[in-house]
Amino acid sequence: MRVVTLHAADRFGASPGTVHLVGAGPGDPGLLTLRAASLLATADLVLHDQLVSSEILALVDPRAEVQAVGRRCEQVVVTHEDVLDRLIAAGRSGRRVVRLKGGDPVVFGRGGEEAMACVAAGVAVELVPGVTSAIAGPELAGIPVTHRDRARGFLVVTAHTTGGSDVDWAPIAAFPGTVVVLMGHARWAEVTADLIAAGRRPDEPAAAIACASTPGQQVVSGSVASIAEAGRDLPTPAVLVIGDVVSLRDRIRPTDADRSPVVSSLG
Amino acid sequence: MRVVTLHAADRFGASPGTVHLVGAGPGDPGLLTLRAASLLATADLVLHDQLVSSEILALVDPRAEVQAVGRRCEQVVVTHEDVLDRLIAAGRSGRRVVRLKGGDPVVFGRGGEEAMACVAAGVAVELVPGVTSAIAGPELAGIPVTHRDRARGFLVVTAHTTGGSDVDWAPIAAFPGTVVVLMGHARWAEVTADLIAAGRRPDEPAAAIACASTPGQQVVSGSVASIAEAGRDLPTPAVLVIGDVVSLRDRIRPTDADRSPVVSSLG
Repeated sequence: MRVVTLHAADRFGASPGTVHLVGAGPGDPGLLTLRAASLLATADLVLHDQLVSSEILALVDPRAEVQAVGRRCEQVVVTHEDVLDRLIAAGRSGRRVVRLKGGDPVVFGRGGEEAMACVAAGVAVELVPGVTSAIAGPELAGIPVTHRDRARGFLVVTAHTTGGSDVDWAPIAAFPGTVVVLMGHARWAEVTADLIAAGRRPDEPAAAIACASTPGQQVVSGSVASIAEAGRDLPTPAVLVIGDVVSLRDRIRPTDADRSPVVSSLG
Repeated sequence: MRVVTLHAADRFGASPGTVHLVGAGPGDPGLLTLRAASLLATADLVLHDQLVSSEILALVDPRAEVQAVGRRCEQVVVTHEDVLDRLIAAGRSGRRVVRLKGGDPVVFGRGGEEAMACVAAGVAVELVPGVTSAIAGPELAGIPVTHRDRARGFLVVTAHTTGGSDVDWAPIAAFPGTVVVLMGHARWAEVTADLIAAGRRPDEPAAAIACASTPGQQVVSGSVASIAEAGRDLPTPAVLVIGDVVSLRDRIRPTDADRSPVVSSLG
């Protein structure tokens, strides 16, 4: 056995008077970055989204203050403005602040807004990318978002911001690659109907992955026409993926074990 | 100071007879996942892409066999078929194999193909997502790929597979969000010309990020019309990002320090 030791020394850890905007990945602590783990161990204040798991929060220094912020099931727990105020005040008072977000901080995470607010207030910011469930969700279900001859690329939208009549679905429907829809589980029926109306093939393969990378991961598959109904009762968070790559799943993960073998790497 | 110890014990490490397809992230060892670090420390054979840095390879058990495969500067070092043969032979002989790829294994990494080949040969596979430079590259340059009211989503293509006259650029040009182009640096002039011909605004902000997350990170910015020329002499790998979000850069990273503050978290 070999032990990899991550020295979360001050030199490498959280900096005083700095807000570290950190991606926590899709849920499995093993998919946290080394940098994120180091920052969690050395921060004195952690503001985390509701989606961040208790296994990940267990990495926080026990002496640190931990605050749950953000939304849960579309209920605002702490307003976005209040989060910005807390980040700025803590940064100005010299604290070592980690703002921990599910996935990557700039993939629908409002990380850009939080960074801009801190910078405008004279507070130093570090952005720490994370593994996004937009890619990892399908991947852990055996679905590669790109694949030679099947998907020239992929696009990621959210059902939240796209759930309105002002969206031009035509380019999304015509995109010659994989379409990933994050969040907005309640709007999947509307989103898939809009995509079909805009020209996406109703029988194109589709899958939905809930709670990706966690012990509760669930996967259902079907077509663009059927996936909203098939995934109606899935827990959240859930990722919707549309594309020919979905049909590779049986050849990449031939068992019916939907649970990814990724396990916690933390002793 | 608190030390986070990552026990790369057999229970959590690489499994005998298994090919672990692992994303190494964009380059900074701090952006490696805990799972990836654990697997590197416990594999007995590591096949890595040329892009993977020596700092990351330093995490490999010194007793393990390490082979560089894949392409470098479009020169094939080891053919893809040979890589598949090696993975399958090693898996069948019961070795603990890590196939380490830059970024995420299924983002233009042929991870899906390698997984399918192993599964078809009866070799167990684990896919371990990584941080992709498609998101992290712009992010570490202060450019969020999504941002409320600026980008409803993002789209990722490669200049390699799209560098042909058979590509329908219209939906990519019309996509109401950020466009990220990975690889194919030599084809950026063609790609941006095609995008403009298909209707993308020539004066839309664009940036190019080379060697993202490494000490050699470089960023240049301009417009869709100018970025290929502006980024002509950048080293590779380089990421091209197009969208209104590029103009947020000055407000997120107000200094002219292009180097991200992300540092190695490894003691």
